[in-house]
Amino acid sequence: MPSSVLSHQIAAQSIGRIPPCTILSEARAAEIEGLAETILAEIGVNFTDNPAALARWQEAGAEVQGERVYIPRGLARRLCATAPASFVQQAVNPARSVTIGGGKPVIAPVYGPPFVLDPVEGRRAARFGDFQMLVRLAHASEAISHAGGTLCEPTDLPLETRHLDMLMAHALLSDKPFMGSTTDPERARDSVAFARTLFGLEGDDLPVLLSALINIGSPLSFDATMSECLEVYAGAGQACVISAYAIMGATAPVTVIGTLAQALAEVMAGTAYAQLVRPGAPVVFGLYANALDTKTGASIFSSPEMTQLTLAAGQLARRMGLPYRAGGCLTAAFEPNAHAGYEAANSLWASQLAGVDFMLHGAGWLESGLVASPEKFVLDTDQISATLRQYDGLQSASGDPLASLREVGPGGHFLGAEETLREGEARLWKSAVLEDRTHDAWEAANRPDTVWHARQCVNRLLDASQPPSLAPERRAALEAFVARRKKEIAGL
Amino acid sequence: MPSSVLSHQIAAQSIGRIPPCTILSEARAAEIEGLAETILAEIGVNFTDNPAALARWQEAGAEVQGERVYIPRGLARRLCATAPASFVQQAVNPARSVTIGGGKPVIAPVYGPPFVLDPVEGRRAARFGDFQMLVRLAHASEAISHAGGTLCEPTDLPLETRHLDMLMAHALLSDKPFMGSTTDPERARDSVAFARTLFGLEGDDLPVLLSALINIGSPLSFDATMSECLEVYAGAGQACVISAYAIMGATAPVTVIGTLAQALAEVMAGTAYAQLVRPGAPVVFGLYANALDTKTGASIFSSPEMTQLTLAAGQLARRMGLPYRAGGCLTAAFEPNAHAGYEAANSLWASQLAGVDFMLHGAGWLESGLVASPEKFVLDTDQISATLRQYDGLQSASGDPLASLREVGPGGHFLGAEETLREGEARLWKSAVLEDRTHDAWEAANRPDTVWHARQCVNRLLDASQPPSLAPERRAALEAFVARRKKEIAGL
Repeated sequence: MPSSVLSHQIAAQSIGRIPPCTILSEARAAEIEGLAETILAEIGVNFTDNPAALARWQEAGAEVQGERVYIPRGLARRLCATAPASFVQQAVNPARSVTIGGGKPVIAPVYGPPFVLDPVEGRRAARFGDFQMLVRLAHASEAISHAGGTLCEPTDLPLETRHLDMLMAHALLSDKPFMGSTTDPERARDSVAFARTLFGLEGDDLPVLLSALINIGSPLSFDATMSECLEVYAGAGQACVISAYAIMGATAPVTVIGTLAQALAEVMAGTAYAQLVRPGAPVVFGLYANALDTKTGASIFSSPEMTQLTLAAGQLARRMGLPYRAGGCLTAAFEPNAHAGYEAANSLWASQLAGVDFMLHGAGWLESGLVASPEKFVLDTDQISATLRQYDGLQSASGDPLASLREVGPGGHFLGAEETLREGEARLWKSAVLEDRTHDAWEAANRPDTVWHARQCVNRLLDASQPPSLAPERRAALEAFVARRKKEIAGL
Repeated sequence: MPSSVLSHQIAAQSIGRIPPCTILSEARAAEIEGLAETILAEIGVNFTDNPAALARWQEAGAEVQGERVYIPRGLARRLCATAPASFVQQAVNPARSVTIGGGKPVIAPVYGPPFVLDPVEGRRAARFGDFQMLVRLAHASEAISHAGGTLCEPTDLPLETRHLDMLMAHALLSDKPFMGSTTDPERARDSVAFARTLFGLEGDDLPVLLSALINIGSPLSFDATMSECLEVYAGAGQACVISAYAIMGATAPVTVIGTLAQALAEVMAGTAYAQLVRPGAPVVFGLYANALDTKTGASIFSSPEMTQLTLAAGQLARRMGLPYRAGGCLTAAFEPNAHAGYEAANSLWASQLAGVDFMLHGAGWLESGLVASPEKFVLDTDQISATLRQYDGLQSASGDPLASLREVGPGGHFLGAEETLREGEARLWKSAVLEDRTHDAWEAANRPDTVWHARQCVNRLLDASQPPSLAPERRAALEAFVARRKKEIAGL
């Protein structure tokens, strides 16, 4: 076991916290790293429709044939060394800035669903109103430390300017950090310009104001949209979450070892490229993973293979000295039912044990990411709130740990013990959403189900949530920027 | 970190398996062990209505005052040393004998619910027909390695002879190992005599034919029923699962540290007592735990405190060299809904990470243990089947791990790759019960929910299940034994 991993485990133990889980031996991890170097050198990586990228690679010492880049052994790893092990992403409210890679996971909501599960209308195309509501939920949820990006696709808005409306909603409805657009490099530039305006910052040395999801076209391919968006964000010193998109059996091999080697090679290529664009550009080692049922085509989440991938990739990220993105509360379920509960909990556990630093899809995800659900959102954040208590470690007793037992004695009970009355409620985690009545009381209340409780919780959160305050001149500047860009885009 | 724990972790890593999680540092574990010794020496343990037990303790060197036993520091631990680190519990089908403490968890179903959730009648008192059906499910489920004991209380049978009917059902409907009665020492003796008859064994040196759940009257009390049942089983060399019954805030302190110290003291007292009865008697270090919402009285499962308890007690059990019982698929939910899914998965993860050796309540538990559910049973076993794959470790690729990637190349896909076609289906775990169709196909099928799928799975399992074969003379001997005992009991 590498000594850094061991010391991490001992540090976690000393405060009674669950340490990141290491399932790869030193030899196995080194084997996978060797396979990744072989992939980069012998199979290569495509950078399509981006001659500038190919030129950068050639200049750095790679061999370029057509759109294929062959990266000699050792080169990618050397380039990756300038990426920082952690970084702060600023929030407009400085108290809500987050450290990604700081030992405690930063949690963001679901990203990208074109549909929502509406309590009244059922499953339907997502609208801007849903997007705004999900941003408000992210703003109001204590367990959510990062408001994410495309919480759902506002399909009722024109594609060409949708990113501007989403950025505006993030700025007006939340004061947590958020993500920029990666659907087009022009929209990435808009995102950076928007963030500059929001924070009132100019110049070339921006702090990290945005993170951006750079999905690799697995296997081993960066299309022009992604490589150019990466150039925009890395070039501006903004954070790229460079994510292998590993669907075992479809975009990755059916073996865990093969998938790990491929994902590592992909993230190394992307990270190295970000460093070629701007040495020191912050990068997150990303993994999105599910398996394909090769018979039916269904998505399989939270299976043992997914757990192994998630844990092992976390080890590989730590060995590279990069923050790690993985997991979330993933499920293939269509509704927040038992299926969703089992799978979401499984993938949340795998993420936590993997030592995840940036957890995208932390809340609200259904149907393999096709659907966002506010009710699932609050069920997930409730579970995450329990998970996060782990990072507080084992609470000490105040004073003699045997005090209440001495008071109560053998055969007694602790209900009236002084310690129970003084500390019981504060000490013990309690769900904010799950049923907690007796069966009789539940029957008398017409047997409300978990989703009903979740809906009440959504309404409570939205009712109680305070919109953030944004300085009027900032808001005016943002509005002017968006109005100008919309006009320009319409004129094209 | 103790070197034994470390070597365990490295061994697990070398095959790519999730190692047991250690959250207590050496210093913290030693502190808790010290507190447990203090409890035994200064607060003491009650053995009520059992003068023979008090006499045994006095003879062993403890100080007895009334029904309270004060165990001098070091005595309990010395006595515990004769309990084995692992043992084999025989099944009537030798291929189904299990090693408890052998590194892979032995999984048993829910134990004790007085109610069942009937798909037609709803929640109602459990009947013998339910018990038989649950035993058949346990027999048929691959993930279940131990048929358990009182899978539900057959409340339609007379209490005095119910245990005989349950034993008979275990013998006729399953060939997996099972548990004896602990509701009365006479019934414990019946259980041992029944097992002798089933296995056709006499004499004093029985192999382990039965395990028995000895619930401690926490805090720190063994009533006559439990201490005398323990005497029967330990005296016959049968396995006692000696379980602290830790409801934080009710039967245990509200602090994790206090609860751990109390539970350790309790299990040490019970284990030491079993060794006083018969040195070498097999014992399992048991923990049942939930927290009490000290405001509403509701049970809280799978909270961070429960996870910490489960993990830390596993470490304490390993340090004592005893097999460990904990967890299961626990939940307070009334139905197999999202609430149940999250909580069951959480407590399954905690159990697995704790290095559990004997997992009671592995399948079918609802409503804090008040209700057994066949549908929840198969949902849980489905999840357990995924968990158990962990114990196979990381599968190697057959041949070159990069073969399919070389075949497919950057930008390709693996759907038609030779490795995918050859191995995809066999390699990737797949749920046997959760929905796996597209949303359209699901809608067309009238949107069946998880419970509907589970019910089909129950029916498939029961239809396909082959009853075990029992030699006719054994069956006749069992029937004669039961008939004789029923007559004797009726005559009392």
